[in-house]
Amino acid sequence: MTPEDAMVLAIAESERVRGTTSPNPPVGCVILDAHGHPAGFGGTQPVGGAHAEVMALKEAGTKAQGGTAVVTLEPCSHYGRTPPCAEALIEAGIKHVIHAVSDPDPRGAGGARLLEQAGVTVESGLLADEVSKGPLRAWLHFVKTGRPHVTWKYASSLDGRIAAKDGTSQWISSETSRREVHAMRAKLDAIIVGTNTVRKDDPALTARDDDGIPLPHQPLPVVVGMSDLPDGAKLRHTALHVRTHDPDEVLTSLAARGVVDVLLEGGATVAGAFLRAGRIDRVLAYLAPALLGDGPAVVLDAGVSTITDAVRLTVEDVTMSGPDLRISAVPQT
Amino acid sequence: MTPEDAMVLAIAESERVRGTTSPNPPVGCVILDAHGHPAGFGGTQPVGGAHAEVMALKEAGTKAQGGTAVVTLEPCSHYGRTPPCAEALIEAGIKHVIHAVSDPDPRGAGGARLLEQAGVTVESGLLADEVSKGPLRAWLHFVKTGRPHVTWKYASSLDGRIAAKDGTSQWISSETSRREVHAMRAKLDAIIVGTNTVRKDDPALTARDDDGIPLPHQPLPVVVGMSDLPDGAKLRHTALHVRTHDPDEVLTSLAARGVVDVLLEGGATVAGAFLRAGRIDRVLAYLAPALLGDGPAVVLDAGVSTITDAVRLTVEDVTMSGPDLRISAVPQT
Repeated sequence: MTPEDAMVLAIAESERVRGTTSPNPPVGCVILDAHGHPAGFGGTQPVGGAHAEVMALKEAGTKAQGGTAVVTLEPCSHYGRTPPCAEALIEAGIKHVIHAVSDPDPRGAGGARLLEQAGVTVESGLLADEVSKGPLRAWLHFVKTGRPHVTWKYASSLDGRIAAKDGTSQWISSETSRREVHAMRAKLDAIIVGTNTVRKDDPALTARDDDGIPLPHQPLPVVVGMSDLPDGAKLRHTALHVRTHDPDEVLTSLAARGVVDVLLEGGATVAGAFLRAGRIDRVLAYLAPALLGDGPAVVLDAGVSTITDAVRLTVEDVTMSGPDLRISAVPQT
Repeated sequence: MTPEDAMVLAIAESERVRGTTSPNPPVGCVILDAHGHPAGFGGTQPVGGAHAEVMALKEAGTKAQGGTAVVTLEPCSHYGRTPPCAEALIEAGIKHVIHAVSDPDPRGAGGARLLEQAGVTVESGLLADEVSKGPLRAWLHFVKTGRPHVTWKYASSLDGRIAAKDGTSQWISSETSRREVHAMRAKLDAIIVGTNTVRKDDPALTARDDDGIPLPHQPLPVVVGMSDLPDGAKLRHTALHVRTHDPDEVLTSLAARGVVDVLLEGGATVAGAFLRAGRIDRVLAYLAPALLGDGPAVVLDAGVSTITDAVRLTVEDVTMSGPDLRISAVPQT
């Protein structure tokens, strides 16, 4: 197996654990034996549990001797809740380490050096872009800024309406898109909505499968705004209610809880507040191929009064989600 | 050269004359000699001039003997302003004819039969989809419905605004997109705007190259609405002003002038009227990767008050136009 094929599998391992590891990064690791055959697979366990390398080494057993570790993030070198992974790799007799992304965390850095001092060859950068825009995106942002990574997701018609004139919106987007969103929720730490959305839609913000059964990992539901939640609201006893209109207060409060990866599901007022504060890190738009010509807008008051103030984005990716367009874009800095 | 390669070249010939042939179809033809080598190329000349087959035969000369004609539309069999192409092909000694689309025009149909009666083999359907959705799209629609084909083009932000709160809109879309639109205008019969747009933007609706020089073919500018055009308006002496709010009256008036392919460039009110009347055949949206959160909408009053009445579209094609998204979609019938 080529190192690149192994890295693709390591990425798959990391995706499998994404959403369950925060504030630790969701890492994936594949151990290749001395002949280059895959011998062990692993992903980061929930906080306090083993890291990806240790999981993969355990599965590989003695086959790790003289082998290669292919891992999405540079192995750590520090003693935290668990011993450093670099040490575990050395002890298992690993001869080569190939990682995608170097560790930006000052506590973690040095894994490569520790390995090289023990005679292990280390290569960095394989599929780095896929990893840093994919499974490690939110965590890398969190380490760099100290703030959780915020993806603002919305579904609208092609002309930017989230509902018709009379307020009806079920369903603007397709079943495929709705299923995608549920799968995404199960990979996240938290979902934010505003008090308006709670009053209007009474969402549960759970991640469910096609049959409505809750998925194993559930994100923390977060409600933002000053008003009390209505008595019977589904979120009344499950959600964290942050009584503020300041996105930074919300994010500070979430960071303190170890939340790294956040989905902002609206509505228009909360989205506007986050845009004005520059606290949207990614826009994920599901555009249904439909025109409404009237009805509530995607976003209100983004702080733009003239065209030169527009919030300019760079499109990262466009795909079809069933009949809908799925657009991923990042604000230009 | 394979017949498919020749058809690709025939399509290119048809694209070269598109916009100059209405109400005749823009057809392209490639003559292959008896050895399968390209010997002649041709596109339909303006009304009264030669058809594509005759142009290509002229270039091929005696090399046409025993050869193959590859043509985007079934050769015609009727005496109109010019003699039937089927006859010209037979006289030139063509042995095989391969066309993409069969002639839907009752006056033209029968070309294949005429050819077969003369011992020419005829094949139909090669790259039929490319041709019928491409260069012959508007003409096929015109023959089928008696109405010009209407493409509604708009440029907006990702959240469906065509300008900022203060009305500024230069430039929402990128230079690449604006250049594309100018090139498109040069391939069309007419461009429609409303009187509001004339008052607000005073457009010239000309097709210009990158240096602002007018391109060889210019579409007919058409203004729709009851109000008089302002005295100094650029379109005052060049445009056809149709004083009505009824899209069908506009289209009838254009059809009578031999207009087959129309671009509707807005604004929101005219677009709404055409949508309500079901007279938009294609939506071409340029979405700039930007958010505005306020400002005039893409379309007003599309006749939709509840979600089940949404004008549902099917996305045909999504491409990037510089940084912008270019979405082509057709209303579901």
